[in-house]
Amino acid sequence: MEYNVFAKACPSRPTLEHVTGRWGSLTMGALVNGPLRFNELRRRVDGVSEKMLSQTLQALERDGLVHRDAQPTNPPRVDYTLTPLGQETAELLLALIHHLEARMPDVLQAQQAYDAR
Amino acid sequence: MEYNVFAKACPSRPTLEHVTGRWGSLTMGALVNGPLRFNELRRRVDGVSEKMLSQTLQALERDGLVHRDAQPTNPPRVDYTLTPLGQETAELLLALIHHLEARMPDVLQAQQAYDAR
Repeated sequence: MEYNVFAKACPSRPTLEHVTGRWGSLTMGALVNGPLRFNELRRRVDGVSEKMLSQTLQALERDGLVHRDAQPTNPPRVDYTLTPLGQETAELLLALIHHLEARMPDVLQAQQAYDAR
Repeated sequence: MEYNVFAKACPSRPTLEHVTGRWGSLTMGALVNGPLRFNELRRRVDGVSEKMLSQTLQALERDGLVHRDAQPTNPPRVDYTLTPLGQETAELLLALIHHLEARMPDVLQAQQAYDAR
């Protein structure tokens, strides 16, 4: 079977959305340098609510991109790590993110020209 | 100034969302092979409404990623093209899309394992 995100019913489309969605992309990007605990992730992904981060992590875990590692300590310690597939995916995503960050002066200039029309 | 999508107020964050949002990503990907007219785009981005496609193109045009070329014909002919910055961005985005499409068997297997827990 061929997967194609352009087709409405293709299962690759929700996965692309989990990876590139507002919180999914930042969560994947935050985990690229190694495991983080829930509260560390929440601080790194500035602006995310507890509920949204929790839903985001669950979707990424179900897609096999993030691994949730709960240690049976008291209190329980939960680490989130990228799986190998998640790591490859996050690296491609970060290439895009770094490209956009680097080109923001051009984007802002375009926005000013557009707004001045 | 350093741009950083992880910071809530950074202007790079909305631009990342325009590029990676549900319709933005598919619109950018559809334009990577050359200019398309509005209705051609609408067919290619399966499932998008006229209103959403219009808003998506406007945001991408304002960011300097898409160029809107209106010919003064009757009826007017409007072509949408990626700018050079848009083309670079779309290629990075497509690398991510093709990677996910290729790895969908692994994603589906992970989803089944998750749902069976």
